[in-house]
Amino acid sequence: MTELETLRHSCAHVLATAILKIWPEAQFAAGPPVENGFYYDLELPHRITPEDFARIEEEMKKEIKANNRFERIEVSREEAIAMAERGELAALGGRTEPSKFKLDIVQHIPDGEVITIYRNGQFTDLCAGPHVSHTGRIGAFKLTNLASAYYKGDERNPQLQRVYGTAFKNKTEMEAYFTMLEEAKKRDHRKIGREMELFCFDEDVGPGLPLWLPKGTVLVEELERLAKETEFAAGYQRVRTPHIARESMYKCSGHLPYYADSMFPPMEFSEEEGGDSVKYYLKAMNCPHHHKLFGAVQRSYRDLPLRLAEYGACYRYEQSGELFGLMRVRSMQMNDAHIYCTEDQFEQEFRAVNEMYLKYFKIFGIDKYVMRFSTHDPAKLGQKFVDQPELWKKTEDMVRNVLIRSGINYVEVPNEAAFYGPKIDVQVWSAIGREFTIATNQVDFAVPARFGLTYKDRDNTEKTPLCIHRAPLGTHERFIGFLIEHYAGNFPLWLAPEQVRVMTIGDEDPLVDAAKDLHAELRSLGIRAELDISSDKINGKIQRAEQAKVHTMLVIGKRDLEAGAVSVREHGKGNLGAKPRAEVVTALADAIKNRA
Amino acid sequence: MTELETLRHSCAHVLATAILKIWPEAQFAAGPPVENGFYYDLELPHRITPEDFARIEEEMKKEIKANNRFERIEVSREEAIAMAERGELAALGGRTEPSKFKLDIVQHIPDGEVITIYRNGQFTDLCAGPHVSHTGRIGAFKLTNLASAYYKGDERNPQLQRVYGTAFKNKTEMEAYFTMLEEAKKRDHRKIGREMELFCFDEDVGPGLPLWLPKGTVLVEELERLAKETEFAAGYQRVRTPHIARESMYKCSGHLPYYADSMFPPMEFSEEEGGDSVKYYLKAMNCPHHHKLFGAVQRSYRDLPLRLAEYGACYRYEQSGELFGLMRVRSMQMNDAHIYCTEDQFEQEFRAVNEMYLKYFKIFGIDKYVMRFSTHDPAKLGQKFVDQPELWKKTEDMVRNVLIRSGINYVEVPNEAAFYGPKIDVQVWSAIGREFTIATNQVDFAVPARFGLTYKDRDNTEKTPLCIHRAPLGTHERFIGFLIEHYAGNFPLWLAPEQVRVMTIGDEDPLVDAAKDLHAELRSLGIRAELDISSDKINGKIQRAEQAKVHTMLVIGKRDLEAGAVSVREHGKGNLGAKPRAEVVTALADAIKNRA
Repeated sequence: MTELETLRHSCAHVLATAILKIWPEAQFAAGPPVENGFYYDLELPHRITPEDFARIEEEMKKEIKANNRFERIEVSREEAIAMAERGELAALGGRTEPSKFKLDIVQHIPDGEVITIYRNGQFTDLCAGPHVSHTGRIGAFKLTNLASAYYKGDERNPQLQRVYGTAFKNKTEMEAYFTMLEEAKKRDHRKIGREMELFCFDEDVGPGLPLWLPKGTVLVEELERLAKETEFAAGYQRVRTPHIARESMYKCSGHLPYYADSMFPPMEFSEEEGGDSVKYYLKAMNCPHHHKLFGAVQRSYRDLPLRLAEYGACYRYEQSGELFGLMRVRSMQMNDAHIYCTEDQFEQEFRAVNEMYLKYFKIFGIDKYVMRFSTHDPAKLGQKFVDQPELWKKTEDMVRNVLIRSGINYVEVPNEAAFYGPKIDVQVWSAIGREFTIATNQVDFAVPARFGLTYKDRDNTEKTPLCIHRAPLGTHERFIGFLIEHYAGNFPLWLAPEQVRVMTIGDEDPLVDAAKDLHAELRSLGIRAELDISSDKINGKIQRAEQAKVHTMLVIGKRDLEAGAVSVREHGKGNLGAKPRAEVVTALADAIKNRA
Repeated sequence: MTELETLRHSCAHVLATAILKIWPEAQFAAGPPVENGFYYDLELPHRITPEDFARIEEEMKKEIKANNRFERIEVSREEAIAMAERGELAALGGRTEPSKFKLDIVQHIPDGEVITIYRNGQFTDLCAGPHVSHTGRIGAFKLTNLASAYYKGDERNPQLQRVYGTAFKNKTEMEAYFTMLEEAKKRDHRKIGREMELFCFDEDVGPGLPLWLPKGTVLVEELERLAKETEFAAGYQRVRTPHIARESMYKCSGHLPYYADSMFPPMEFSEEEGGDSVKYYLKAMNCPHHHKLFGAVQRSYRDLPLRLAEYGACYRYEQSGELFGLMRVRSMQMNDAHIYCTEDQFEQEFRAVNEMYLKYFKIFGIDKYVMRFSTHDPAKLGQKFVDQPELWKKTEDMVRNVLIRSGINYVEVPNEAAFYGPKIDVQVWSAIGREFTIATNQVDFAVPARFGLTYKDRDNTEKTPLCIHRAPLGTHERFIGFLIEHYAGNFPLWLAPEQVRVMTIGDEDPLVDAAKDLHAELRSLGIRAELDISSDKINGKIQRAEQAKVHTMLVIGKRDLEAGAVSVREHGKGNLGAKPRAEVVTALADAIKNRA
């Protein structure tokens, strides 16, 4: 448990203390810390409403002000059961009713486990801990919302009231959190996506299948262009593969039958090609197709490292309850690549991949990230992990070395590697401090052999290559969802759906002609420029452009025209003054090219 | 029947004449002209082999030299039957056996039709004609191959021998044809595709589903880039849509159930979302998804024309016997777009589309093309064609005007329009004179209404837009198949998978360093450059590069290095001499940018 989780868990006890002061008959079940806070489930005839929050918080404040010590006491199973029967657990002293849920919980604690109770002031609870030393350590807290939940999540059990809250070390941190929440609501990618006309969903197409409107397509294609340029420079080669394949391929890859639930159901021909039934599957990943491309040509050590990259669209069947805007979808476009290399080449290739991640982070102004390095557990070789102890050790050592030497911020998580090799998940934080998992990077030393992939080595023997799976931008859907929040829809110039709007002060012919001419020049340079030459007042035009989150506004008035200049405004920055037209055009083209 | 078809049909009679001279017992069935030639089906105890061709051709030459007149004689049904019974049809005078197939044919001629026989020399045949005036008009002919075929194509009927031949007005044209065939064999896109490692097929992926290897992907992506640039300049907006949709969408579009045989079978969830069964289909066309994008936002007349373009991958279920390399596939990438416009805008939009076709033809050096303009038949309104007589007339007139005013080479084909509007198929000829249909351009005034698409007009009423479907490069698969033959794999610089290879004369350090430096400079400009700095002899290096169809070879020798120059070679053109390095680099970058 992290320090903050401990604090929040302690606050759950303070919540129970307060509720019991008001409603002594409350029966408590579980009260764990959760993401961003904590909750406590309870049974109570009175239906708690948000109107009760102030009263409960008042009692909580008293308990915190009293600064009672959290006291840990080991008890025997018999003692714990006796306390629960006397109604002394999750209670302020004894009661006539037994502590029924706690009784049930204690009876399910496995033999041999240490059983502890925690006390703060009058309140005693069955609890494994840990807790903060005193209630006064809870610097700031707030009750947030209510829900209902079945005891132990089982609908055959009684329905309980769930009270949610959050807690922080101090007020400043709590305020920052709520400000971030407010900001996240304003930056909700679904809301901005609708307002800016970036993407949409349609019932006849199906849930979780985004359709990209023109402005959103700009985002996808600019990311694609960025990756293409970056990968060209890094010696990748692009490929294109169909979105379907026969069942036999996914049996070979091992995706079938194990991964079948995450795939769309097959398209089945009862008889194709002389009577045999054939099943085609929509691809859920690009790897098998790339392996086929590796194997399509006789490969030699001279071809390695071979880096095959594709903008593959994959389809995964997420449960409809899991779908969420662009964050959880059923169709996903991936900046995917597979690097086939020798063991000797592995370390350098892996380092280059990591450097590419860092390069992207810099372009997108991602200052905070962490790489989760998942390794194998030697005790589970042959079961959870492919039985190649030496390769595990070698590749994990190499990965660790690369992370350390590149000064990359990482944490190591044992026992969470993929079946076929170690992996790295990349977590990034948006400008407002929300965390997203956007990318993975995996080593694969099992599947190339399943596909019979080999290369002819210097010594003329056939060897199996290692394979690195990598997708530094993750799925475009999620990455764009992240970017929308990160930039609040105010994309940098190179990425902005509408980069420039040329507008006139008034609609007199010479101004309109000059605006059209400038607009045409910008378009001829590939700049996404629009034109507003209506007779509307300039303030109205500017307001419209600001609302549409146009990055740069170029205003032409009489004085500008006479001086061969344009007045430059940037979204959110206001007027940057008049500058010579040619200078403005060059500066825009350069800034776009350099993704400034 | 075209003039050439008439000539070839006459040659079929000459073939029958010759065969009867050798084997008088031969019984003939049908002998029509076909693409590139003609055939005649016959029953004969002797099995004709290619060794018999010389003998048959000898007899044919005699018949042509005799320059017999083709005489047309109208006969009554009774007379014709009597002649067949007497064995006088498809015969040199009478025989003891009846002309059994001709007897069957004449008995199936519908009542009221004029029945004719044709005579040349001794030979008489039942035939609707027309024919050339004299056998001597057949300037050149050749028997080409043999096959077997069931009488009337029905396997319950007797199996016949089919003798194929071809004929031309003169020897020169025939020789040109056979040279073209030879050349087409050398340029076979499947052969070059394999040799250059452009694409491959894989059994586990499935037939008709090409996987693009890196060099072939360059071709696809360069075409994509060309289209993106061209369409950006023409005011198109790009979109992206999923490759699947629910059954309800294809019912709305009318593709289901009528088009179901051409689609992959559905992916069916027995219960998705609360118990209902749901079917998803792989898309066979992009239109419905684009219609959904049009409808996703409230549209006004100010938004029109709205031009939505996508590199959509579509999937169609072609019978496996129909599959042929890249020419007939099951997965196809399309440079597709839909233009939504008002009736007033239609003519200009349609003209712009045609101009785009011509622009592409110019870029690819396609000198010979024809547009087939398919129109409706007023008698079939409401059945074969949507019942909107005024819109048919209006749009067909506009299309015809555009074709005439733009000076486009076209033919008008009545009764072949699509259900929902007139269409244009574009035929082009490759450099060696083979014909390909690569693109279509359709007007649609029915489907937008089915999808309930409207825009708010100036007068505040909701109106239905017209829609132009267009894909000027057709499917990329077929277009690249065409380009491979057209260029024989020697792609122009901008399109070449490997644009430049930098090579050294020897492997001394200063040469290698200069080559690496030049290579890096070219790559930094986005040029697809490779490096050959081995110690191999320069002739070997050049030969390897020529074989790989590298467009430009830059050779650095000692003298070049001293002069700050490189020696330039172009594939097929040989040595173009030494030039200053900077000049060479600039010229390459410019030529690529301008698609010279």
